[in-house]
Amino acid sequence: MDFVPYRHKVQYYETDGMRVVHHSNYIRFMEEARCDLMEQMGYPYGRLEAMGFGIPVLSVQCDYKQMTRFGETLVIGVEVTELSPTRMTVCYEIRDDATGSLRATGETRHCFLSIAGRPISLKREAPEAFEYFRRLLLASGHESEKATDTAQTE
Amino acid sequence: MDFVPYRHKVQYYETDGMRVVHHSNYIRFMEEARCDLMEQMGYPYGRLEAMGFGIPVLSVQCDYKQMTRFGETLVIGVEVTELSPTRMTVCYEIRDDATGSLRATGETRHCFLSIAGRPISLKREAPEAFEYFRRLLLASGHESEKATDTAQTE
Amino acid sequence: MDFVPYRHKVQYYETDGMRVVHHSNYIRFMEEARCDLMEQMGYPYGRLEAMGFGIPVLSVQCDYKQMTRFGETLVIGVEVTELSPTRMTVCYEIRDDATGSLRATGETRHCFLSIAGRPISLKREAPEAFEYFRRLLLASGHESEKATDTAQTE
Amino acid sequence: MDFVPYRHKVQYYETDGMRVVHHSNYIRFMEEARCDLMEQMGYPYGRLEAMGFGIPVLSVQCDYKQMTRFGETLVIGVEVTELSPTRMTVCYEIRDDATGSLRATGETRHCFLSIAGRPISLKREAPEAFEYFRRLLLASGHESEKATDTAQTE
Repeated sequence: MDFVPYRHKVQYYETDGMRVVHHSNYIRFMEEARCDLMEQMGYPYGRLEAMGFGIPVLSVQCDYKQMTRFGETLVIGVEVTELSPTRMTVCYEIRDDATGSLRATGETRHCFLSIAGRPISLKREAPEAFEYFRRLLLASGHESEKATDTAQTE
Repeated sequence: MDFVPYRHKVQYYETDGMRVVHHSNYIRFMEEARCDLMEQMGYPYGRLEAMGFGIPVLSVQCDYKQMTRFGETLVIGVEVTELSPTRMTVCYEIRDDATGSLRATGETRHCFLSIAGRPISLKREAPEAFEYFRRLLLASGHESEKATDTAQTE
Repeated sequence: MDFVPYRHKVQYYETDGMRVVHHSNYIRFMEEARCDLMEQMGYPYGRLEAMGFGIPVLSVQCDYKQMTRFGETLVIGVEVTELSPTRMTVCYEIRDDATGSLRATGETRHCFLSIAGRPISLKREAPEAFEYFRRLLLASGHESEKATDTAQTE
Repeated sequence: MDFVPYRHKVQYYETDGMRVVHHSNYIRFMEEARCDLMEQMGYPYGRLEAMGFGIPVLSVQCDYKQMTRFGETLVIGVEVTELSPTRMTVCYEIRDDATGSLRATGETRHCFLSIAGRPISLKREAPEAFEYFRRLLLASGHESEKATDTAQTE
């Protein structure tokens, strides 16, 4: 699968008193890129929600490398690096679009949930969606074996 | 009824590249003050939601008088200035807590809605809640007659 | 001048507990569209800031017509409707991109400011920038005469 | 030193389409609690900024344990767990105020910076401020030795 990297143009309301993007907004940019990837793969998050499922965030991690200023455009690479029937890990590389310089790297871990708030096996309850994520995992390459292992043990 | 004016301490993430509170945040502070007033009057917004009703915003208006900086505390006066069985208008005065100087004034107009998204008469469907708002209107004083008129025509 | 209307794709973090875009975010979308217009006209807001000027918001007004949901794309029309050497009014029409249905209309009023916080005549201190805004005003058509009058009196 | 734990009442605009606090907001709550701690210890962040220094975030980490709903109040424990002349680590425990149940834990790592963006030794350039942070580190107890070691090596 070939995806167009997600781009986010920095808005004035995203800057803070240091005249740079407030660090909490990178967490939001990761969500934007994650949802964009699901849409590009043909399975928008809204479709999953309409089926009664959600993908809440279990943890988030972000390393800030360089500050970003108003008017700059960020380009965000997204990879599914771990996948099991019940969980998923997504990694992010956030770069300045003009220069390619690295601004931040991040990781979010997720579980699959029913609308009632119960953890589910996405593989069993929405196998088509799970298959999409599995292809994303394979596309990311370097992490596939570990992910397969995890999947087998659950 | 006597209410404690709502106070909001300005956070760093609420400032922007001009090193002052971003103008969009005042709209959020008005919501905070509105919800605080409902809680103080004994009818928290969550209780109304639990009954299947909502009070969406039909319009918002804000005049910015002075800029507000990180670490300052705002004190927000709230008044219900118009009320009918189906609609409500709320006015706000936002001041610096330390000096009393006026930072912004605002107004929000609302309707009453069922969870299904249908406009309702709050007076008929939740008379107890309506009575609370009516007392807030009377407490605000100067706008009571007009509001009563509006209420009669709807 | 011909401009590409600004588009904003609604993000999950912009929705609230009613499962629709929180009303305060429309104020941010207007800022996005305003900055995009300045960029399209060849005079990005950052350039004005680098020259030591700002365009703070004096007032904001928004009428909400319909709710907007996650995943929808908004298209935002922007017009400069009043301009004087010291002030500017901008109007907005926010529509659903897929159906064209009107979601909100808004207006922001601005003054021109030096970095020291002093109101300035943009016409005198940055005539080239002012000329750009004047062209936007003329492009909007219906409000040009009133704006010219206002400009003459200041 | 004895501090009053920081409390944050959840606002409607902080919830998302899942009807719970959006995960990015916990990062903001940590900043609120961090700034409140500095204010309680007698050295507000604004004072450090006025002296020409900043404490930018190098990394952020958050584990989400339970969801938080509109109207609930969070109580946030903050500890300085590592300190060197040039860096600091802060840990957070976010609990529901009513029940004490754990909602999230987090960690932020920081460096000390001059306004020009140059990393500095806070110990050398603002020894009084550094001493305040050292007392916070000692108050946290369990991490003091490691922090002292780190400080010696830099």
